Amino acid sequence: MNHDTQRAKAEAFRAMHDRSRILVLPNAWDPMSARVIEEAGARAIATTSAGVAFSVGYPDGEAMPRDEMIAAIARIARVATVPVSADIESGFAHDAREVGETVRRVIEAGAVGINLEDAIHGGPPALYDLETAIDRVRAAREAANSSGVPIVINARTDVYLLSIGEPDTRFDHAIRRANAYRKAGADCLFVPRVGRPADIERIVAALERPLTMLAFPIDETGTELERLGVARLSVGTWPTLAAMSTARKIADELLDTGTYESMFDGAGVSYPEANRLMAARPIT
Amino acid sequence: MNHDTQRAKAEAFRAMHDRSRILVLPNAWDPMSARVIEEAGARAIATTSAGVAFSVGYPDGEAMPRDEMIAAIARIARVATVPVSADIESGFAHDAREVGETVRRVIEAGAVGINLEDAIHGGPPALYDLETAIDRVRAAREAANSSGVPIVINARTDVYLLSIGEPDTRFDHAIRRANAYRKAGADCLFVPRVGRPADIERIVAALERPLTMLAFPIDETGTELERLGVARLSVGTWPTLAAMSTARKIADELLDTGTYESMFDGAGVSYPEANRLMAARPIT
Repeated sequence: MNHDTQRAKAEAFRAMHDRSRILVLPNAWDPMSARVIEEAGARAIATTSAGVAFSVGYPDGEAMPRDEMIAAIARIARVATVPVSADIESGFAHDAREVGETVRRVIEAGAVGINLEDAIHGGPPALYDLETAIDRVRAAREAANSSGVPIVINARTDVYLLSIGEPDTRFDHAIRRANAYRKAGADCLFVPRVGRPADIERIVAALERPLTMLAFPIDETGTELERLGVARLSVGTWPTLAAMSTARKIADELLDTGTYESMFDGAGVSYPEANRLMAARPIT
Repeated sequence: MNHDTQRAKAEAFRAMHDRSRILVLPNAWDPMSARVIEEAGARAIATTSAGVAFSVGYPDGEAMPRDEMIAAIARIARVATVPVSADIESGFAHDAREVGETVRRVIEAGAVGINLEDAIHGGPPALYDLETAIDRVRAAREAANSSGVPIVINARTDVYLLSIGEPDTRFDHAIRRANAYRKAGADCLFVPRVGRPADIERIVAALERPLTMLAFPIDETGTELERLGVARLSVGTWPTLAAMSTARKIADELLDTGTYESMFDGAGVSYPEANRLMAARPIT
């Protein structure tokens, strides 16, 4: 992508976090879903790490090779006109310098935003200790500075998601981490799985940057989260799981009875329309 | 893939065309859909060229680079336990030798079957002249022979699909081509869009090899096609379009009202289940 275009996209993406209205991101997992979501009116495309992993043949949790993740981001960024933010999990590395290298490469692939987690992959649920986690966010910021693209770093703490520590310690713990990540260069803070509206409101007030939330079946709608002060809403793997479910329903019926009901019922996008959608290429 | 495993898969796939019962192939477009379809009980995985193209960011019709198509087949073959057949459109080349090179590379990527069309891409609807089309099937067979993997070549004529010539000439034209492709090394003949059951029955009788059909909304069900003597049933891009439609419905609702109804309704595959599905790797 042209460097000026990419810088402009990064700035445009940053401006979407101004809380004038909640930034709703129906997460994409491949170029096809990205184009569908863009055409539906999304202001930006955020990837789901699990969806991307599934679509290239791996489970979630950094099981896919880093090269595969970066190639998937490049394929999505190639077809999207709006800004693309890449979920890079925990950076596909323990070492902060390697996290920086991952960030450098996803920027090269066309991303103008990242999600970076503080969870350690490949073992029991655990977070990087605070100093290490801070170094990792700082390395991501420095990689962005070196590349000259002011990407939006959405730093995620998994204190709630992984149920770290006693329940009554989680609020303070999450705030301590989120604000430390902010000082290390994060633009936006992501605290998935908080749960109660009152807690969400308290977190919004305690943070020094916009808050991202992740939708779960029991959670508040986008409108309710907006009212609570949430800046940005991700829906994670849910759309990917729904697409898998559609494929399963069709395959089950076809193999069971040889009929096509769920296949033709579901096909609200026609073949010519899908071709037009995928042929529409941005000018970069 | 281990060479013996791949040979065994090719033989197993060939045996599925014995017409003891119709081979139903709910077409896959990526590793995720392939695993879902395999788990639903499919005996083999056949790709949809359009679905693969969409999922890597291109419209149908050989618009995607050949390397992207081959990489997509490799990703699918890596996760599938059952035989994988690759839809290679018209071989991503005009020249017969290059068609052979495409076949050599999809075999290397793990495929044990191919679909090869006689339509010329990149212009108005037209077929390769018969001699050229025969050379191209022969080149595919020779590539398979050289590789030592006895792949199933499903040679497709688009006489009906592209409405070539006057309607009353199509039957003879399609049969002439299909049987010539058989002599050039095809194992299975694919005549999409025939339409009337009586014509399907006549084609089955006139062909010297098993017939593949493509499902269209107005067509017969798998059971009816089996009764007409059809050996194999493809459903093409329909499942991919249904998955796109699911993504659209979810994005429309999220962006419109900030609610999650279609997202959670559709998610019949859970996150842990999806992870298990994608973690299950065949031993090769």
